[in-house]
Order: sequence, then C-alpha cells, then structure tokens
Amino acid sequence: MGLVSTACPPEALLKLRSGNLGICHTRYSTTGFSELQNCQPFVVDTLHGQIAVAHNGELVNALALRTKVMRHGVGLSTSSDSELITQLLALTPPMEERDAPNWVARIKNLMSETPTSYSLLVMFKDVVYAVRDPYGNRPLCIGRIVPVSKLHSGEEDTEGWVVSSESCSFQSIGAKYYREVLPGEIVQISKHGVKSLSVVPRPEGDPPAFCIFEYVYFARPDSIFEGQMVYTVRQRCGRQLAIEAPTDADVVSTVPESATPAALGYAQQSGLPYVEVLCKNRYVGRTFIQPNTRLRQLGVAKKFGALTDNFAGKRVVLIDDSIVRGNTISPIIKLLKEAGATEVHIRVASPPIRYPCYMGINIPTKEELIANRPEFQDIAGYIGAASVKYLTVEGLVSAVQEGIASLKEKDEMISTSNTSGKRVGHCTACLTGKYPVELEW
Amino acid sequence: MGLVSTACPPEALLKLRSGNLGICHTRYSTTGFSELQNCQPFVVDTLHGQIAVAHNGELVNALALRTKVMRHGVGLSTSSDSELITQLLALTPPMEERDAPNWVARIKNLMSETPTSYSLLVMFKDVVYAVRDPYGNRPLCIGRIVPVSKLHSGEEDTEGWVVSSESCSFQSIGAKYYREVLPGEIVQISKHGVKSLSVVPRPEGDPPAFCIFEYVYFARPDSIFEGQMVYTVRQRCGRQLAIEAPTDADVVSTVPESATPAALGYAQQSGLPYVEVLCKNRYVGRTFIQPNTRLRQLGVAKKFGALTDNFAGKRVVLIDDSIVRGNTISPIIKLLKEAGATEVHIRVASPPIRYPCYMGINIPTKEELIANRPEFQDIAGYIGAASVKYLTVEGLVSAVQEGIASLKEKDEMISTSNTSGKRVGHCTACLTGKYPVELEW
Amino acid sequence: MGLVSTACPPEALLKLRSGNLGICHTRYSTTGFSELQNCQPFVVDTLHGQIAVAHNGELVNALALRTKVMRHGVGLSTSSDSELITQLLALTPPMEERDAPNWVARIKNLMSETPTSYSLLVMFKDVVYAVRDPYGNRPLCIGRIVPVSKLHSGEEDTEGWVVSSESCSFQSIGAKYYREVLPGEIVQISKHGVKSLSVVPRPEGDPPAFCIFEYVYFARPDSIFEGQMVYTVRQRCGRQLAIEAPTDADVVSTVPESATPAALGYAQQSGLPYVEVLCKNRYVGRTFIQPNTRLRQLGVAKKFGALTDNFAGKRVVLIDDSIVRGNTISPIIKLLKEAGATEVHIRVASPPIRYPCYMGINIPTKEELIANRPEFQDIAGYIGAASVKYLTVEGLVSAVQEGIASLKEKDEMISTSNTSGKRVGHCTACLTGKYPVELEW
Amino acid sequence: MGLVSTACPPEALLKLRSGNLGICHTRYSTTGFSELQNCQPFVVDTLHGQIAVAHNGELVNALALRTKVMRHGVGLSTSSDSELITQLLALTPPMEERDAPNWVARIKNLMSETPTSYSLLVMFKDVVYAVRDPYGNRPLCIGRIVPVSKLHSGEEDTEGWVVSSESCSFQSIGAKYYREVLPGEIVQISKHGVKSLSVVPRPEGDPPAFCIFEYVYFARPDSIFEGQMVYTVRQRCGRQLAIEAPTDADVVSTVPESATPAALGYAQQSGLPYVEVLCKNRYVGRTFIQPNTRLRQLGVAKKFGALTDNFAGKRVVLIDDSIVRGNTISPIIKLLKEAGATEVHIRVASPPIRYPCYMGINIPTKEELIANRPEFQDIAGYIGAASVKYLTVEGLVSAVQEGIASLKEKDEMISTSNTSGKRVGHCTACLTGKYPVELEW
Repeated sequence: MGLVSTACPPEALLKLRSGNLGICHTRYSTTGFSELQNCQPFVVDTLHGQIAVAHNGELVNALALRTKVMRHGVGLSTSSDSELITQLLALTPPMEERDAPNWVARIKNLMSETPTSYSLLVMFKDVVYAVRDPYGNRPLCIGRIVPVSKLHSGEEDTEGWVVSSESCSFQSIGAKYYREVLPGEIVQISKHGVKSLSVVPRPEGDPPAFCIFEYVYFARPDSIFEGQMVYTVRQRCGRQLAIEAPTDADVVSTVPESATPAALGYAQQSGLPYVEVLCKNRYVGRTFIQPNTRLRQLGVAKKFGALTDNFAGKRVVLIDDSIVRGNTISPIIKLLKEAGATEVHIRVASPPIRYPCYMGINIPTKEELIANRPEFQDIAGYIGAASVKYLTVEGLVSAVQEGIASLKEKDEMISTSNTSGKRVGHCTACLTGKYPVELEW
Repeated sequence: MGLVSTACPPEALLKLRSGNLGICHTRYSTTGFSELQNCQPFVVDTLHGQIAVAHNGELVNALALRTKVMRHGVGLSTSSDSELITQLLALTPPMEERDAPNWVARIKNLMSETPTSYSLLVMFKDVVYAVRDPYGNRPLCIGRIVPVSKLHSGEEDTEGWVVSSESCSFQSIGAKYYREVLPGEIVQISKHGVKSLSVVPRPEGDPPAFCIFEYVYFARPDSIFEGQMVYTVRQRCGRQLAIEAPTDADVVSTVPESATPAALGYAQQSGLPYVEVLCKNRYVGRTFIQPNTRLRQLGVAKKFGALTDNFAGKRVVLIDDSIVRGNTISPIIKLLKEAGATEVHIRVASPPIRYPCYMGINIPTKEELIANRPEFQDIAGYIGAASVKYLTVEGLVSAVQEGIASLKEKDEMISTSNTSGKRVGHCTACLTGKYPVELEW
Repeated sequence: MGLVSTACPPEALLKLRSGNLGICHTRYSTTGFSELQNCQPFVVDTLHGQIAVAHNGELVNALALRTKVMRHGVGLSTSSDSELITQLLALTPPMEERDAPNWVARIKNLMSETPTSYSLLVMFKDVVYAVRDPYGNRPLCIGRIVPVSKLHSGEEDTEGWVVSSESCSFQSIGAKYYREVLPGEIVQISKHGVKSLSVVPRPEGDPPAFCIFEYVYFARPDSIFEGQMVYTVRQRCGRQLAIEAPTDADVVSTVPESATPAALGYAQQSGLPYVEVLCKNRYVGRTFIQPNTRLRQLGVAKKFGALTDNFAGKRVVLIDDSIVRGNTISPIIKLLKEAGATEVHIRVASPPIRYPCYMGINIPTKEELIANRPEFQDIAGYIGAASVKYLTVEGLVSAVQEGIASLKEKDEMISTSNTSGKRVGHCTACLTGKYPVELEW
Repeated sequence: MGLVSTACPPEALLKLRSGNLGICHTRYSTTGFSELQNCQPFVVDTLHGQIAVAHNGELVNALALRTKVMRHGVGLSTSSDSELITQLLALTPPMEERDAPNWVARIKNLMSETPTSYSLLVMFKDVVYAVRDPYGNRPLCIGRIVPVSKLHSGEEDTEGWVVSSESCSFQSIGAKYYREVLPGEIVQISKHGVKSLSVVPRPEGDPPAFCIFEYVYFARPDSIFEGQMVYTVRQRCGRQLAIEAPTDADVVSTVPESATPAALGYAQQSGLPYVEVLCKNRYVGRTFIQPNTRLRQLGVAKKFGALTDNFAGKRVVLIDDSIVRGNTISPIIKLLKEAGATEVHIRVASPPIRYPCYMGINIPTKEELIANRPEFQDIAGYIGAASVKYLTVEGLVSAVQEGIASLKEKDEMISTSNTSGKRVGHCTACLTGKYPVELEW
C-alpha cells in the first residue's frame, strides 16, 4: 500500500540481491477526480510458475469477461480488473502450447477479447512485457538508464530499462525518455534489451484514442506524450482560450498550481499582465464537520491566502484548468471579491465535462457534473463570477494536435505504428459522449 | 488481521443490520509451537455468487491439489490451503448441476479428493456449512444461543447457532455447548436451524484420528472434546504419570499455568503436598539481544519469580505438560536450585515428541526436537534435573480414552456416527510416527 | 512513559557509556484500585547542577507545602508531589551552606516538613540518596548485583547496587536482596558503596506504619517485606480465615490468580480439597458499551471459563483477596452456579475496606466502597452467595506480624532501627480509619 | 505537539464549553533554517492561580536570567526561554503587591530585565496580555472576528479577538487584520476588548529592530508587517535586484515557490520574459542513505521536474530568495544545464548571510554559512553558474522601508508609537553583524 517509494523503499530494494527486474503500481488519488480500482500488481502461481500483472485502465467489457472466467470455474477474490486480466492470462491455453507457456500468444489472445483500456506490465521469470491497448487509451512509455561515467571505484553502476505511465518519473531515477509504447504494441524487456514483438491493429477505420484529459488535468507538466511536453500543450490551451474568449480586464491570474501554464499562455496571447492573486497555505488542517455556518464558509480560505495588493481595485481574469463540481471556484471568487477585486472573470482551459468515463477515470456521475445541472445555465451567477467561458472541444483538440502534427514530420515511427485508419486521434468521450468503442453492458 | 474480537469489534458488527450470519477465523499463535498458514476466511465471487471459506487444518495432499487446480487454468494468489479449498469448490461442476450450484455435492466431491485434515465453514448467501474431515483430525463443535428471559423492554434478543473449534468460546458469547460435528459430517446451518446432511465415511477399517495434542497442549482447559472436559483429561494424565513414574520427593508443583491440572492430579495420586514454586511476572519486557552472559542467563528469571519459602530445603517434583525444545525448563530448574530446592525431578505429562506433524500443527523439524537429539540420552543431566520421566504413549491414550468410554454408554450418537471400523481413535503421529493416512509427497 | 523496560530499553541503556547510575519510576496501574499521580523522575536544573527525584507515596500535607513553595515565587507546572519535593529540595538553602549544596541537610529539612508518605530516590551528579519516611509507609529495599564467576573472556561484568520498592524486581536483573531501607533512614549509594547516613526519628510513641495492603493486595507474592515472603503472609491469612470463618462445603477454590495462596492456606487449615474452578481467558477482548442486556451480563464470562466438572453438584468455598466495589465477584458466583455449583460461599482474606487512603493508594471514595453501602448489610444476598465472611482486622494483623516476630530474634538491625516507641506496627487506616498521623486539610 | 490544528482539533475545542479564551504555540520547522526551542505554552500554578505563557523569540541574556532564577531557589525543568519567562513572572513580587497579583507591573519588570527578543502571550484567568519587546524584533499582530450576518437560526456566532505572529492566519479563521502590537507595547485583551496599557521605551537613540528576514524568507507572502504585504516587498526586492544586477539573458525564472514574487519583479524591471523552468514533484519520497553515486546525484531531481521546452537553448536568469548553505542551488543548475539551458545566471533577492542570529532564528554556524567559506570567493564556479549576484544590504533595506515610508503618512499611530530615537529600523544582524543590543555572554 502507498506510493511505490513507501511500499518499496530503497533499503528494501537493496536487499533484493538476486533479482534485476520488478514491477510496481501506484494508484491514482488526485483529489475528488480519479480513484481507480485497487490495482496493485496481482501475483498468482500458475502451472508454469508465478506471473505478476500491473494494470492501468479499465476494461470496457469487464463484466462479460468476469462471467467468462467464473464460468470456467475460477473464483475471483477482488473486483479489480488486474485480477481478471491475470486469471485470463493463467487460463488461456492456446492450441499450440505444449510444454512451455507462450505468453505472447496469451497476451494477444487477451487483446483480442478486450479492446480497451489498458496499459499492462506482465512479469514472468526473467521477462517483462509492456503492453498498450490498440486504442492507446492509457499512456505507457519506456526510459533508459545509461551508465554514469564517474563513479567511486568499486561501485557497480546500474544500466537498464524502465517503463512508466508518465515520462516525468524517469528523471527522478536518472533515466532518459526513450520512446512510447505504441497503441496495440507488445514490447518485451529482458536481458537482451527492448524488443518490439507485435502491434495488434485496431478495427479498420478506428483512430487511436489517447485520453485527452491526461493533457488537460492528470499528467505532470514535465511529462511527454506523443512527442510534446504537457506544459506546452497547456500553455497552447491558454493561448487558444484567449483567442476564443477574450476579456476586458486588468490582470490575468491562476488557481495555483495546475492552471499556471494556461494562465501564462492567456496572458501572453491577450497582452494582459500576469500576477499572482492566491498563495497556498502549506499547513492546511484536516477537514472536519464544521459546527456552524462561519466555519463552513472558511474551507477555501484555509487553503489559499489572498495576495490583496496585487489585485485590489482591479478586474481579474482567473484561469482554471477544469471545473468538475464547481465547489472550489465559488469560494475563491468570493475570497477575491472580499479582498478587493472589482470583477472576477473565469476562463476555463478545457471544455465542460458532461459524460462519464468508462475507461479508468473516476469522473462523478452525470448528475453530479456541474455542466449537466440546471444552475449551469447561469453558471456565472451561480458561482458569483462576472463571466465564465470555456475552451471549445475543437479548440482543445487543435491545441493538443498542433504539436503532434509538427512532430510527425520528424518521427516516422509514430506515423507508421498503426496502419489501419487515422494516425492521430484522442478520446474526448467525457466532453462529447463519443466513446472510442461501443460499450457493452 | 488479529483476533476476531479485534478484527470484528462489536461496534462494527452492530452496523451490519441486514445480515444475520457470518464466519471468522483466528490464526493460532501459541508460542513456538503452532503457527498455521495465513487462513483468513477466503472470499471469492463465483458464477453463482460469493462464497467464503474458513479452514482449520492442513491438507495432506495440498501439493497435488494445487497442481490440479492450476492445470485447470486457475492462478493461485496465496500459498494457503484455504484459497485452494475455495477454488476447488468454485471449480467443481458436478454433472447434475444445471442452474443452481449444488454446494453439498461440491463439498462431498472435495472430501473425496482429500482425506484430512480440515474443519471447514463454507458460507453461501444464507447458509453456512460446517464440515469436518472423515478422520475428525481437527475439532469442530456447535453451540446454541438461547434467549435470555429478562430483557429490558423493547430489546430484541439474539437466538441462534454458533460453530467453533473449541467449546470454550461459547460461554463468552452466552451460548451453550450443543454437540460436536462428527468426523466426516456435513452440517447445514440456516434459518431452518441445524441439520445434519451427510456423514462421509472413512476407508474401511480406519479409526478416527482426532489430534491427541489438543488434549495435551492446545485446547483451553474448559473446552469439551468427545464429551469430556480437557482439564479432567489433563488431571488424569497427571494421575497416570504418578502411577508410571513415582518420585521420592517432598512437594509437587507446576510450571504455571498449563501444567497445573496434571500437577494437581499427580499430587492427588501420589499423596505428596501440592505447592506453588513459581509466580508469573505480569510485566515481562520484550526480549532482545542480550549484550553479555549475565543478561542472557536472566531470560527465564524475568518471566517467573521463585516463591522461595515454599520449597527451600525440599525435593521438588515439577510437572510440565510437554517438552519440545528444552529451552525453557533448564533455566527454571537452575532458578529453583539457586533458590534452595535440594532436588528437582521433572515429570512430563505427555510422551516425547519425535515426529513432524503434517496436519496443521507447526512442530519444529525432526532435528530440533529434543527427543531426537543426542543429549536426550541424558536429558536429566542436560537440563540439570535429578531425574526426568515422561508419560508413555499407552498411558496418554488410556487417560484420554477412559473418559470417552464412560461417556459412550450415555451418548448413542457418537457411537454410531461412523459405521466403518473402530469407533474411537486418536492421531498420535507426532509421538509414534504412525500417520492416520498415507502421506503423498 | 510506560514500564521502565519500555521507556528505558536495554538498547538505549547500552548507549549510555559514560554513566553508571540512574533512577526510573513505574506508575501503578493495577486495575481499578491504584492510580498514583504521574510520578516520573522529576529533573530540574539548580544553581549547583541537575537533581532528579523519583517518589513513591503521597504527602499528607501536600497542599500546605505547595502554598509554601509558591509563596516563595516558584511556579509549579504539575500537580505531582514529585515536582513539589524536587522544588523544595532546590529551594531549601540551610544556613550552613556556602559553596557546595548540602543535600543531606536539605533532605533532613524536607523530612522535618512532611512526616509521610514517601520513599524517595534523589540523584545528584554521582550520588543517589535512598530515603524512606519516618513511618516507613511505602516500601523501599536495596539489592546487590554480585559478579558472575564465569563470563566470556573480555566481557566486563556489572557489579553494583539497586534500589526498588519491591524485592521481586531484583531476581529479574540478577541482583540479590540485601536489606530494607529502614523507616526514617537516609542511605547514600555511590562509588564507595552503600552507607547509612542517618535515621530521622518518629514523634515519641508513634509506631511504624507500613501499609498493610501491600501484603494483602499490591505486592508480588515473591517479594520480601520485613523479612517475610508476601506469599507466606497471604497463606497465613487463608489459614487464619479458615479458623475464623469455617465452612460446611465440599471444595475450596480461588479467584485466580491473586487469591491462590490464601485459598491453599484455607484448604490446608480446613482439610477441604483444593480444586480449580475458573480458568483465565488469555484473549479477553477490550470492553465496550454493550448494546443489550445479554452482552452486559457476559462481561465476566469473557474473562474466565468455568471448569465445570471440578465443582458441578458441589458446595464451593471461593476465596478472594479483597472486595472493593463488589462488581467482579457477583457475576463469578452467577457463572459458577449456572455451571452447577450447589452453593457458593465467599471468604475474603482481608477485612472490608471502609476508609479512604491519603498516603498513595487510590481507593475509591467512601461512598463507592461496598462496605459502606446499605447493600453491605446483606452482602451475601446482594452478590448471590450462600454466605460471605471476611478476615478480622485482628486476624490480618496477627497473620502479618506473626512472621515478623519470629524474625526479630534473628535480625537485630530491624529491632533497633527506631528507638522511639513501638518497634512493629502497620497502617490499617483503610480498614480502621486510624491514620498514622493527623491529616492536614 | 504538532501544529495547533493537530494539537487542538476543532472537535476538542468544541468540548470546551465553559471558557472563551486560550493560547497556543506552533514551533518553527522550516527546512534546515529555523528550529526554535521547544516553546509550547508553559503553564504553572502560582500563589494567585494558573498562568500560561507562549513565547516567540530568544532572550539575549537568557543565561544570566537562568542563574538569577535558580539563585532564588527555583529549579528549572527545561532549557526553554518560555519556562524561564514564566518562572520570572511567578517570582517577581513588586513592592506594591498586597493581595492580588499585579501582572502588568510584573511584565514591565520582566521587560526591564531583558531587552529582546520576545513576543509574548500571557494568560491569567480571564485576561490575555500580548507583549512585544521594545525593539519589536519578533512580529505580533491583532485580528478581529466580526459577526457573520447570515447564520442558521439558533446558531450562536463567535465574536472576538485573536493575536498571532503573522496576519495570514487571520483569514483562515474568518478574522480581519486589526493592527500590530507596537514595539514595547503591552496590550490587554479581555471581555472589555482590546486595550493598550503601556509602551515600554527603548534606550534613547536606539531604532526599532524588526527582523528583516521575516520579509526575505520566513513570513507567508500574504502577511502584513508594518502596513505592507510581504509579497509586495519581495517583488520590490526583485525589481531592486534587476537594477543592481542586470543580466544579458533570454528568460527569467524562479526556484518555486518562495522566489516567485522576486522573479516576477525582476522580469518586470528588466523586460525579460518570465517563464517557469521547474515543476514541483508532489510525491517526493523520504530521503535515505543513498547507496551509490548515481542516487546521491539524483536528490534534487526527485524534488523538481525540468520543463525543458521552456528554456532549452536559452540563457536563464534564475532568482532565488536566499542562499544559506549552497546545497540546493548547485544541483538545480546542473539539472537545467543538462536539460538544455545554455547559461544559468543566479540572482539572489537578499544579501549573503554572514553572521549568526541570537534572537530566535536558527541560522547555521558561521563556519557553515556559504558566504563565510573560501569557495564563496568563486561562488559561481563552485555552484556551476555563469554568474552569481546578490542584492545589497542597502538595496534590501530600501526595498523594505520604501513601503513603510509611504504608509507613515496615512498611519499616525505607528509613527508615534515610540518617541525615543528613530521611528523606522530593522535588525540586519545576520547580514551585517550589527546587533540591535550588546550581547551578554
């Protein structure tokens, strides 16, 4: 349990002298928004030895697959997709298997049974397979640890490969970004290095469907997807927002810290000065049942301090990265106005979320989403803003894909990775209701 | 994790308004002697719904069964027999099953695949099955909760059934001992009450094989097995020991607290006065790596205080219930002699343990057992005693079975429970090396 | 916080290379009965260096002394007598002190200001003073650590002195009982060994007043006070009780474990057989707010198991060491009767407690004590016993002092320790209301 | 222990029905820089009742005062100044006191014995005294809780006064900044409201000496001192730095988050674009003993991610708020250069720290301070920067005092608070070695 660094502290790893590969898994816990199933690496004994599976994503046809597995007489001890995938891999005995298990065939077979969404690490003895579903819905990338030239004498240097959802994790262990696992690709990592074994194609005509919300909200800004830095995409979203939704105001600012790149982009495009209006309180106490109205109203005031002198008497454009439930932005606006802002205009660097996600992101129910509630008709009035405007879906998609286009000329590999259908595409289901595959119920 | 009372505190149970049955499991942790596998109730989803299994014992053919299950394509996530049994129950699809699962047929099928040792609770929806293996190796008994007459008005009283390894647990929840689950019996407990469904027979000629060490060591003295109180059996062992191994001494005493009934029996039979020679120190600190010889020698002195005046200048017969490794008794003898005992004679109320147990009791390896080590030839000299004598296997068996014989007249049910072969018998494998079934490797 | 073994674990002590003396303190926490003030060694910086004080007892004139200290301008940060004593020692500047502090004079001065009750350890630099109040109300004794002959080569053996309230603690650290600190005595322990510095006398005519409840209830049975083992005194109390309160019954038993010596004494004197009727449940869960009448009645049944066969159909004499509130014995009687005892006679090996203690023992208020409540008039009926009888105060005092008398011939030191008044005497205030000194309010 | 919100959680406070005032204290624990003495509110019983003292600061003549108190016969149980102050207040019996204690006289007396540094809260029964030393070295300010108009019916609203070192804490409890406690002022807070009792003057000619490092480093940016917001002062420091140390570079950035206002100020003054170059890693694992050179070098890389695209191929001016030991900035520069920065120029928004603080700030020893080490001669080369420049002391003081000057016209109270000597002044001892008072040893 806990972060990988807590669950597998370096002291513990140093004791593992005999092995040189392993897999870990960190569960999302971004506040309020994502809360994936309990997806620790699932380990089972099979006839051929132990396999371990780490899984990021959510199988769209999980229910049908569970029934299939249980019909075969397997009892499932958790509700997690990771166990399901592991038991499916243990179960599948393709015709050609005689003595040794053919894991690649089993993985391909698994991929033929479920289209999306999954990025997997499968470990068996001395091999790790890195697998990404044909739609590439969840990210997966490979990093390389290169030897350090100057080491104290007698020290043995580490050299090897690492796989991660986000490339930002590479820097912290001294690895360099190598490349993405492509949609549908099965990559084998062993003592022989990295080897691409296969690319399972999508149905003809289907574009890839990488989750656009990774750019908007989830990923760390220094991560790289599809050849571009997330920070840069967010800054482009801010510029696009300034074009789509200009404001007659005095200063541009951000709800720290995630919306800062978009706010800087908005400021650059609009020509308005960028200032800070809120500072974070490092010592926010735990929440509790507030006993009276006064304390209930103070929630957000405990989280942020107002930098009054930077905006008192001014009209503020406040950039936020997304508005899901609307609980947070309303008291921030109140705080700014009480501290002297004459107007607060909200500009959101993503379109409103209107539909649930069935591919791994724990979006609130349709009813909870502010964009689906009656008060959204007058959202500005509801949250106390002078005006509220969102980035359009088209604006977001173009801000995202602009960087890929410029990259495609340089990088042939991505453009040829999946020969059927369109080469670029993103899942915008939570914004548009258009899911990349038909959903089974 | 932890005792049932910790893992399922009453506050938690009180919140479970909608249900009225459940199963729990407590792992043995008697010092140094038993340390069963991690046997929590194992819960899985099956095609027909959730089943939960709690298991006490150890399957003699676990390895073969694991291979069988894995050959079917099931991955096993723990090394515990409980998971194995649960997956076997999930797997077994007897011919006649069509729509609803026939759990009794599945349990019988399981019992046909493994002879011993297991006492099981299997819960499915609104039924609990209590199952004991055909040899009756591990105990299992049923208690009844009867309504209390005087309750405060408006209170609803609990009425129902409970199942436990040891009957001593009934008193503490206000239940009365009802009866044992018989060797090979499948008992169904539901809203319709307790119903015996079937008694699976042993191979012709095989006697039952209830673990004789439950009487000697494991069970709480107020528990009832085969119609007799454990305390009484231990007292008879002490009497038998006085007959087999009389001593020319002044006082009889005990290593508190487990050997006290045997010591009182020895005193009664021998006519020697019973005195206390040791008092327990309630505040024994945790053990640690003692930095020098002095402190190493003080281990047992921290655990017991010598009641000097009761034995100074006297010859002491000290009764112990069993000697496994011999680490404890030696410093106790030293302590008594330093405090003034002129002679210390050790009398052990059970035979020496010489063989490993493969049926659920974590006995040390053959090499560790003091009875198999060279120094056992002069055990008295080795531990510093004036003499050491053990109860014979025959003496133990007769002390145990004497009470059952007297009971059989009264209780027809037990005498007719298993029609094939002998009606009374115990597993003495750890003492004699004669295992109740042939062991598979 | 916690036991000395927890607060000062051996690992921590081993790091203290530069010192060779120290003091610790364990706070009483015997259930329900004693709960002394928070008396950790109190340490302060004084003009002359640091002093540390550990205190067992309770100053009868604490309030007056607190006012005196505060009038001098000292702020007191706790309500504990230990701090008060420490600040009094820091404060007191006797006339003759010039450069170095005269701690012995300061301690004598302290003793002149408060008669009882206190046993003290005062540490200053390289000396520890062991002090017992003139009435000797709280125990204090000295042990000697003698070198072990056979040590591994190169190991340095420990040799030295230890001071403790109870001698039972010596055995567990390899020390031997040396002698008691006498009432009023100041003993200096330093690198020069043990040296008696002074014996401060009691007012003319006052006998010593060692707490008789140490014998009855508090002390561990293997401790030695006034030359006799506590266990032996308790056994004598049982014999005396059999003389004072004989019973027409079949068996004698005990409420384990503290009343066992008295029960064995009663059995020996009366000629009735001694049996065990209750076994302790090692896994008693924590108490909680029981939700209905049934569970409320089960409290004691969770703590003890009934050894039915030992007393079913018999009349039981049950010995208890004391009855304070009467909450415990009542459900035990009910338990025994439900399990088949035909009669349960309670014999208590001490007189009823009727008065509060102001000298360190946390006895309930006068109103809470069962002996002062109306129901005590028919105590047997109230708790459901066939009869209830107590030891008389005279019986208790004679059982206690009988052993001292026999000892006095051998040990001149004790008989001459305090020349004024009687040589033997005990505080029986909680039984008789006669306090050893006049109480200030 | 812990933050006030942890030590006194709202649930606990809500139980305190009978009282309506209290004091708390949070110990500094800013990483590596400050680590004040253990200064919880110190509570003692005095002759007149309980007093409690919370103290921020460090008495320059603590040693002399300790000796004085101990000479009076008071033992001191901690090394903290808070206890010392509390005992001094308990001790001091001014001539005129007869029956009731005159706390104001006692506080004045205390102030006559120690010039600095202390901000105090003294609580006695129903009054709290807020006291700031005559030099005003540590901050102290008062906030007001005004009633909320709309409350649910039946709720009682809180109205009252709060005192804090930093005004930023007011917002989070719904209070408004009211005013500073002036240097030397004793303010009484009771049911009669806030009342200024006295202003104890400084020695003639001495200016006030508020710690200038509160502006530079310690305070939260939304706090107000001397009428100006800390964020604004830091921004002015950045502007001043751009004037004193201009750079031929492409972009300006910050070491997040504390240097951001100075970086924005530098960017505004210099005309260079402001970009972000580092993003914080929210999941930095705990540090540990790194087993090899590679991991040792990765420390800072685990804390920050490089936003490569924002500065690759560019010359970066990186603003930091202060450099104490130089351990942090060096690996950040390495990280930026590896990620593609062509040059990294360091500009520090404060002068180098060269002298220890004896007034409450835990600055490293003189030897540890990078400004005093030989390598500081070539600090740029040492840390790998293209150039390193610091703000001058004059620049810092003018950036700080510029805002106060502009304020003085509006606020008569501050200008008249202390009639002797200069009206504005700051302690710059750690930068210049000029301490506000002569230090006693």
